[in-house]
Amino acid sequence: MTHTPVAIVGAGPAGLTLSHLLHQYGVESVVFESRSRAEVEETVRAGVLEQGVINMMRETGVGERMDRDADIDDAIDISINGARTRIDLKALTGHQMAVWPQHEYLKDFIARRLADGGTILFETSVDDAEGWDGDKVVINYTNADGTHETMTADYIIAADGSKSPYRAPILELDGAVRARHEYEYAWFGILVNGPQTQKELIYATHEEGFALISTRTKDVQRYYLQCDPNDTVEQWSDERIWEQLHTRVDGNGLAVQEGEIFDKSVLKFRSAVTDPMQRGRLFLAGDSAHTVPPTGAKGLNLAVADVAVLAPGLARALTKGNDDLLTKYSELAVPRIWRAQHFSYWMSSMLHSVPSQGYFQHRRRLAELEAMLSSEAGRRYQAEQYVGLDLPKFEI
Amino acid sequence: MTHTPVAIVGAGPAGLTLSHLLHQYGVESVVFESRSRAEVEETVRAGVLEQGVINMMRETGVGERMDRDADIDDAIDISINGARTRIDLKALTGHQMAVWPQHEYLKDFIARRLADGGTILFETSVDDAEGWDGDKVVINYTNADGTHETMTADYIIAADGSKSPYRAPILELDGAVRARHEYEYAWFGILVNGPQTQKELIYATHEEGFALISTRTKDVQRYYLQCDPNDTVEQWSDERIWEQLHTRVDGNGLAVQEGEIFDKSVLKFRSAVTDPMQRGRLFLAGDSAHTVPPTGAKGLNLAVADVAVLAPGLARALTKGNDDLLTKYSELAVPRIWRAQHFSYWMSSMLHSVPSQGYFQHRRRLAELEAMLSSEAGRRYQAEQYVGLDLPKFEI
Ligand SMILES: Cc1cc2nc3c(=O)[nH]c(=O)nc-3n(C[C@H](O)[C@H](O)[C@H](O)COP(=O)(O)OP(=O)(O)OC[C@H]3O[C@@H](n4cnc5c(N)ncnc54)[C@H](O)[C@@H]3O)c2cc1C
Ligand SMILES: Cc1cc2nc3c(=O)[nH]c(=O)nc-3n(C[C@H](O)[C@H](O)[C@H](O)COP(=O)(O)OP(=O)(O)OC[C@H]3O[C@@H](n4cnc5c(N)ncnc54)[C@H](O)[C@@H]3O)c2cc1C
Repeated sequence: MTHTPVAIVGAGPAGLTLSHLLHQYGVESVVFESRSRAEVEETVRAGVLEQGVINMMRETGVGERMDRDADIDDAIDISINGARTRIDLKALTGHQMAVWPQHEYLKDFIARRLADGGTILFETSVDDAEGWDGDKVVINYTNADGTHETMTADYIIAADGSKSPYRAPILELDGAVRARHEYEYAWFGILVNGPQTQKELIYATHEEGFALISTRTKDVQRYYLQCDPNDTVEQWSDERIWEQLHTRVDGNGLAVQEGEIFDKSVLKFRSAVTDPMQRGRLFLAGDSAHTVPPTGAKGLNLAVADVAVLAPGLARALTKGNDDLLTKYSELAVPRIWRAQHFSYWMSSMLHSVPSQGYFQHRRRLAELEAMLSSEAGRRYQAEQYVGLDLPKFEI
Repeated sequence: MTHTPVAIVGAGPAGLTLSHLLHQYGVESVVFESRSRAEVEETVRAGVLEQGVINMMRETGVGERMDRDADIDDAIDISINGARTRIDLKALTGHQMAVWPQHEYLKDFIARRLADGGTILFETSVDDAEGWDGDKVVINYTNADGTHETMTADYIIAADGSKSPYRAPILELDGAVRARHEYEYAWFGILVNGPQTQKELIYATHEEGFALISTRTKDVQRYYLQCDPNDTVEQWSDERIWEQLHTRVDGNGLAVQEGEIFDKSVLKFRSAVTDPMQRGRLFLAGDSAHTVPPTGAKGLNLAVADVAVLAPGLARALTKGNDDLLTKYSELAVPRIWRAQHFSYWMSSMLHSVPSQGYFQHRRRLAELEAMLSSEAGRRYQAEQYVGLDLPKFEI
């Protein structure tokens, strides 16, 4: 039976980054991914990288394409009924952000893992696993050709996204919690073949709801409109979409650039945190442990922050026989997750219009935006959280 | 029939400050106050003055006693489960705050109005008024001896507190609104004969609820404990009060100083805004127009900010025949009111423990406090709002 020190379920940002960072420490791993390489490399999801993630990519030799092709932004705009205020992230914090789509990030890491001789088993689904409370983990999986196999591992990392079945055994532990919050709104997301409206992101609030102007490449734009969580794609004709984007965003000499809409989807808003994120030889990383609403753009960044603790923890355990850092994984990772939850919740609450909350909350929310935007300290407080904390660093 | 240019209902902070400021512009007024002078000068309510109010007192000759006897504080403390972080208001904003009880403030203004020959009719209740849509206001009132009289005025100012009957005619105007918010908690307030726990205020949050340590004089302390809005004084024995104060506040070498509790009361939490604050010759100022929860210490300060617009507006109308500023009173005063509402709501939400909101909100709230307190920008953003904006200044 094959054995690997670290079995990683899922080739998303969490799993691939972990496998890559472990390799930097000389620790080998196997990544299982139920989807095909093409599918993974084509699914458009998150798109904003924090400075800490940019730095990690550069320092570990995965940043070349990003440095060449990504939009590096110094600022974001916040728009209130068409009047825009610039939050100069770079001037306020010294940090920038990169608009680099998640699937491009994944392409970089897949290419690099394969170049480094790493193992990614695409179209291979982990069916179940057991033994994390003992000496070894046993993993049963199904290959692309339908055959069943078994592998053993010292550690198993569930980097398998928000529907992970590996939370369940952790939540059986004494004192373990799953914190959840549901939002009254969702995002209607579109992908557009067309010119950029603006290079830098625009977070727009308006009586009719929130809108986000973002760009994936020079020719592909990603726009979002606040919608009802129960809305369907059928309810949003192209005409209605453009009309609402213009209403919510246009102003101060800027107009949303139209194009050909080639994808429509409804993105649910949820917050969830699992604490702890580990049990014996089982560890959660990324969306398997926590979900953030997209407003703060923290999803991918948090996944990377998790594995920035987990990789050195595993490496120290496997190469030095010292599991002190690994034991503290949750304790070290969870506070940052709550900070990101707060930030995402705050940004969401401040920017979305929720008529059912009444007139008091509507006006209070606008006063909050005004207080924040009119103060250098307020803008810097927002910007610091937007660009994020540096990634944690540990010696092994 | 007597005539006065400005009839002011209520000798609270709004009414007395207005009468005093009008006098600076050479405009006379009559203040009606249903309570006795002694009662007005003994009722303990708000206690924190913003820098703008301090400056106004000094510049208009009412600051002497405050400068001699008030605690001028450079900072407040925020305590989380007994661990205190100092918010250095002065270093962060260049502004200070004064702990000067509202009844001392009122004593200063009453003494000064009388010395300046002003008219304050104590124990005199305004029964009703009419005519604000016309050329003159007619005011019917009852004197201390029970006799009824009538006075006319060019303008009537309802500075008669939160139960004002003068909101009603304004809310009949097209587009007028009264925004309201109710909170799930209240404050149990005590007055204590005993030594100071600390000169500077301590805003303490704890799983069992919020507590505020504040001081009125060296020998009189004002402490508050978060409680249920339906709690009664009978439910809070001295023993329970001290036990809860110690639990929520003690730590880092500090212990709440006990003493003789000579007053207990439940302080309801409410937010309300009236917009507009005027109709014809009728104007609202202070609590008659808006209510803030006490967490932000904005109640008295907002009343003063209102009349800092209203006084020059009235003076310009009465001495120059130009009512442009008066017409814009609401437009100029309301944005600041919303800023104060937001700040009070934010401080309240961040510091109170509301188990019914669930675990997610509990942890998010602590993460928000941590984000704010650990960032210089966060502390400054909080401090700027705490010390408040400068009072508006207008030429006549
Ligand atoms: C539509 C959408 C839009 C988003 N937009 C944003 C955004 O704008 N900003 C932002 O910050 N975040 C956004 N997010 C969130 C962000 O994409 C996620 O936080 C991020 O992908 C988390 O990475 P992950 O590696 O933890 O999980 P995932 O990316 O979900 O990766 C999990 C992987 O595990 C694989 N897998 C699952 N089960 C198995 C199994 N049993 N065997 C083998 N493989 C398995 C899956 O196929 C998947 O590839 C978005 C998410 C979605 C769904
Ligand atoms: C118990 C309590 C504690 C508080 N603590 C704080 C605090 O810690 N921090 C803070 O910032 N704020 C606090 N506040 C709020 C603050 O005291 C008020 O915002 C402030 O008093 C408002 O001033 P005002 O002049 O508008 O109204 P008021 O001070 O209420 O004055 C109105 C006056 O009008 C008189 N009046 C009413 N009707 C008539 C009539 N028909 N004829 C004649 N006279 C009339 C009343 O007798 C009263 O004297 C507290 C309030 C209360 C009630």
